[in-house]
Amino acid sequence: MIVILKKNHTNQNLEHILEIAREMGFRSHVSQGIEKTIIGIIGDDSYVSVDRFENLSYVDKVIKVLKPYKLVSKEFHPQKTVLDLDDGIRIGKGFSIMAGPCAVESEMLLDEVGAFLKEQNVPFLRGGAFKPRTSPYAFQGLGVKGLKILRRTAEKYNLKVVTELMSENEAEVVNEYADIIQIGTRNAQNFKLLEKCGTLNKPILLKRGYMSKIEEFFQSAEYIMANGNPKVILCERGIRTFETATRNTLDLSVVPYVREESHLPIIVDPSHATGKRELVPAMAYAALAAGADGIMVEIHPDPEKAVSDGRQSLTFAQFEAMTKNLTVLEETVMRFE
Amino acid sequence: MIVILKKNHTNQNLEHILEIAREMGFRSHVSQGIEKTIIGIIGDDSYVSVDRFENLSYVDKVIKVLKPYKLVSKEFHPQKTVLDLDDGIRIGKGFSIMAGPCAVESEMLLDEVGAFLKEQNVPFLRGGAFKPRTSPYAFQGLGVKGLKILRRTAEKYNLKVVTELMSENEAEVVNEYADIIQIGTRNAQNFKLLEKCGTLNKPILLKRGYMSKIEEFFQSAEYIMANGNPKVILCERGIRTFETATRNTLDLSVVPYVREESHLPIIVDPSHATGKRELVPAMAYAALAAGADGIMVEIHPDPEKAVSDGRQSLTFAQFEAMTKNLTVLEETVMRFE
Amino acid sequence: MIVILKKNHTNQNLEHILEIAREMGFRSHVSQGIEKTIIGIIGDDSYVSVDRFENLSYVDKVIKVLKPYKLVSKEFHPQKTVLDLDDGIRIGKGFSIMAGPCAVESEMLLDEVGAFLKEQNVPFLRGGAFKPRTSPYAFQGLGVKGLKILRRTAEKYNLKVVTELMSENEAEVVNEYADIIQIGTRNAQNFKLLEKCGTLNKPILLKRGYMSKIEEFFQSAEYIMANGNPKVILCERGIRTFETATRNTLDLSVVPYVREESHLPIIVDPSHATGKRELVPAMAYAALAAGADGIMVEIHPDPEKAVSDGRQSLTFAQFEAMTKNLTVLEETVMRFE
Amino acid sequence: MIVILKKNHTNQNLEHILEIAREMGFRSHVSQGIEKTIIGIIGDDSYVSVDRFENLSYVDKVIKVLKPYKLVSKEFHPQKTVLDLDDGIRIGKGFSIMAGPCAVESEMLLDEVGAFLKEQNVPFLRGGAFKPRTSPYAFQGLGVKGLKILRRTAEKYNLKVVTELMSENEAEVVNEYADIIQIGTRNAQNFKLLEKCGTLNKPILLKRGYMSKIEEFFQSAEYIMANGNPKVILCERGIRTFETATRNTLDLSVVPYVREESHLPIIVDPSHATGKRELVPAMAYAALAAGADGIMVEIHPDPEKAVSDGRQSLTFAQFEAMTKNLTVLEETVMRFE
Repeated sequence: MIVILKKNHTNQNLEHILEIAREMGFRSHVSQGIEKTIIGIIGDDSYVSVDRFENLSYVDKVIKVLKPYKLVSKEFHPQKTVLDLDDGIRIGKGFSIMAGPCAVESEMLLDEVGAFLKEQNVPFLRGGAFKPRTSPYAFQGLGVKGLKILRRTAEKYNLKVVTELMSENEAEVVNEYADIIQIGTRNAQNFKLLEKCGTLNKPILLKRGYMSKIEEFFQSAEYIMANGNPKVILCERGIRTFETATRNTLDLSVVPYVREESHLPIIVDPSHATGKRELVPAMAYAALAAGADGIMVEIHPDPEKAVSDGRQSLTFAQFEAMTKNLTVLEETVMRFE
Repeated sequence: MIVILKKNHTNQNLEHILEIAREMGFRSHVSQGIEKTIIGIIGDDSYVSVDRFENLSYVDKVIKVLKPYKLVSKEFHPQKTVLDLDDGIRIGKGFSIMAGPCAVESEMLLDEVGAFLKEQNVPFLRGGAFKPRTSPYAFQGLGVKGLKILRRTAEKYNLKVVTELMSENEAEVVNEYADIIQIGTRNAQNFKLLEKCGTLNKPILLKRGYMSKIEEFFQSAEYIMANGNPKVILCERGIRTFETATRNTLDLSVVPYVREESHLPIIVDPSHATGKRELVPAMAYAALAAGADGIMVEIHPDPEKAVSDGRQSLTFAQFEAMTKNLTVLEETVMRFE
Repeated sequence: MIVILKKNHTNQNLEHILEIAREMGFRSHVSQGIEKTIIGIIGDDSYVSVDRFENLSYVDKVIKVLKPYKLVSKEFHPQKTVLDLDDGIRIGKGFSIMAGPCAVESEMLLDEVGAFLKEQNVPFLRGGAFKPRTSPYAFQGLGVKGLKILRRTAEKYNLKVVTELMSENEAEVVNEYADIIQIGTRNAQNFKLLEKCGTLNKPILLKRGYMSKIEEFFQSAEYIMANGNPKVILCERGIRTFETATRNTLDLSVVPYVREESHLPIIVDPSHATGKRELVPAMAYAALAAGADGIMVEIHPDPEKAVSDGRQSLTFAQFEAMTKNLTVLEETVMRFE
Repeated sequence: MIVILKKNHTNQNLEHILEIAREMGFRSHVSQGIEKTIIGIIGDDSYVSVDRFENLSYVDKVIKVLKPYKLVSKEFHPQKTVLDLDDGIRIGKGFSIMAGPCAVESEMLLDEVGAFLKEQNVPFLRGGAFKPRTSPYAFQGLGVKGLKILRRTAEKYNLKVVTELMSENEAEVVNEYADIIQIGTRNAQNFKLLEKCGTLNKPILLKRGYMSKIEEFFQSAEYIMANGNPKVILCERGIRTFETATRNTLDLSVVPYVREESHLPIIVDPSHATGKRELVPAMAYAALAAGADGIMVEIHPDPEKAVSDGRQSLTFAQFEAMTKNLTVLEETVMRFE
């Protein structure tokens, strides 16, 4: 930690800082400049808050040197994390495609989607049974009934279920029916829910908060890992910016950033990021080329009839064309030097 | 609702839209332009999703005419809402000041703060027993022990307790100890928690999400009201922007905006918005001048020793000076034409 | 300047840094931690770029300790700057009100506005002769003809003219006709134009870029001052954020921030910030209460007929009511402790 | 254009709107709902401002149906624009790579870069002779001397020069030495400069303002085209958001968006977008996969010694590796269905 003192500080002020550092068990080095005094406080400050120093009126700035996350970092865990679901299905190795409707609308719809995914060799079925909606009057999902439909479809077509958990109180039931549990963007800093995820045994697909800095995204993942569940999949799904032409702004640079800093797999959701189906395939190709471990996209046999998010759902034909291109792209990217 | 068709639509497309509108029980008017066809769909569309039309490939744009909230709006409830807590204490009439430490650190601290507030005639004691923290390693609050300290202090000094609720599972216990229940900015779209608040009988102080548009802020309030609890206090606490000189950007224009659109009281939290104690009094004065119903500020007898947010906490002396100025300012603003 | 080295740096790397610092004429202090090495580089680094160190692959972070502006800062110039225009009119002492139509539409309009301002004792007439418009097809202003109308109106009613300069090539003519030269938000980082303003002898009203951090805002002012013109008036006019209910987000915390950091006067433009006339008075009161040196607002005798920005223009009656309130508010704020 | 009236409007209000529409030569259709009245105003409103209606107090909302740009749009010019520079060099067909140092530091540096680009078959040399810098004290470029160095290098190695224009007054000299004239992000809404570009005969590489919505980006291009120069290359270089881990947030979804809406070529600058060399190659691959027409990147033989932006400059070896991958990627993408 580095503490910079204001110009007009006294010697007592300086002594006070050194005293606090000693109390914390840290060593200090003082660099006295003409205008500013800089104190380097040496020791593992990962878990130490800057508050203790920042509160002092004669302190100008406090800078943490170490990152505010540990389990998430590559320094702590140098090898890439690969999640092994059974049947040889993996995330973190190769390019994983997850697809399905925004909401589980009916058994018939899911059956149609499940059969199509099976035929396309896509192993992950996504679908919302519990739906977070901005308006209290919007369709909130089928709940447990939706979970059961997902499970039955998955069994029938040998797929893995990815579905969202919105409440601590539904954690057990979602854990029972899902293969991968999704935490949505609006709950990215619902810390009680993240803690709960730490006690579950299924992989957690953690969507980046649309308002979360990467550092906060990592700390949300750290919540899950620090509470006991190391199986976290990061998911970039667009952040909120001033741009209104797209639903959100897909921040693809997160992909190489995560690869530099973390061992966790990172996937991309171009459907929610763009909000427009005509932009989805290009962003899926870009995600793969940037080094992502997979994508999650919304598809619907008849997007015009979807109860939610139809505007961003691909038709089966569009999805099929996109998947073919992704396959040749993956081969090329694997040959990169 | 207004539906605009793309240039190259067919007559069948147009017919199809009119058909859907009829099914929904709405009337339609068609305006055929040279480049675009515009369909006005007439009826109460407050609870209708745009999805049904937006999904159609030949639709260019769908515009909702009515607002996506109802109970929150002035049109629905023209008189200003005034919340009556017992002992003649009100919110929504006069300028309410809520103050206290960021976290309930100890009984001693709270006693010191309580005595001071009593002396200053400030009726609301704020303090966090459950603390939402970005890092899993940061101090998470004293929990129920903290709630009890708050309650004892409040009884001793005849104050009202404002404290945060973070989890549905703690709703009952917080409801028991608090007079006003705060929902924090990171839970502003934790819809399950909002629904739960709708079932409680205490006023809910709803902080604006730091990434919530005003329209979404209103819809979060609507969640609480639609689930049965009409006692909502809105709280502007700064939004996240590109500016880093302040912790957040205080969006004070929300205050007159709320007065135009809603009957709910609106208060301002200049402590979290600015993150710097030297900016807090100016923003408190500005809030009052802009028409806010109150402020919530952080104070600490010794901010340098606060376990969290000391940088933005006022000392007792600073708070006292500010309060004096607010009193004369309130008198002036009441004389405004 | 503080340079933090990555974990795996070598002794040569460290030596290299110290060497560069020596070359620059700076002393250095090294703090060797377990995970990181921190080098404090001591000397006046205001004018030194971080590039020299940031470029090095083994450097983790470079932190500048000194601010990137000087002439703007209070440290350099402790007393508040008060600009004396003739006739005893000042900016930086008391609360200055500048008003007028968005664009100079006609001599008749300006005459009506001028007579009204005279009657209201408002000494500053604002109006755009050169208009920056997002669309090339929008009304671009009357140009020099507009400047002449402004001047004639000002002479007749004894007002000071505030008008915008958009191009280096129009600097001389605007300087001739204006009393205060405005630089618009879209030109806040048009550095050639700022340099040009440094060579003029009229006060420059510098609007904050709608995407400028305060630090950048200060550096834009520094451009003008470093090129020879110390007469700068800062103007907050709203920044661009994700919020769409208002045209921009008025960042009022800039006002106390400027008072802490700079000696320059700061005024507020609530018209462009909010974009809605019904929000303007509340934000004007808030600006005054926050400590601003003045406001600039748009007024129009018949806003419904304004060629631009009518939606945010106050009527004469609204302006008159607001001004009365501002007068009593100013008296109150002057009594603040 | 669609005009929505407030609930409490009168018949005279409605008549007044219809009257204005008639004056403008437009037809109108009225849809009277229970809560709102909607007026469809029919005719080419591309060049009509919404102000005329928005100013009216009884108007709730005005929605433009047509886009605020024309020459830029695909509807106006359906075939993709391909710019033919001589020697068979094209932009808008195939994937164009532009590379060079941030600033023209010296003849020696440019010669080294020129020789390398020639060897790598990269036809475009970028380099800044006039440098827009946030601080007035930072290196501002070599000016005309820099232009001459660029030209000599280009002649020697048969390259095309891409360099920035910052001022109307330097337009002629930059036009003389450059093959492609760059307008920087801070000048994206310097309308006088854009107008000037419209009078030049060289292609204009228009960087998106870091604060510009896509619609504004298009209107900036429209300024150039409406003033006579149809040769515009769009360039996405990152927008400003709340994220601080990267210098800006690269908004890659602009690429497919531009392909849907416009005929102009679009290239990507991953260097300024990310600010970190280790993220540049991934974003370059992503740009190509998303359908961009090229990239512009910063390279330096010894980034550690670059006078500016070294942190984001690739070494020659890194650039060479990236270019090889881009070549195989381009072949793959060309095979996409």
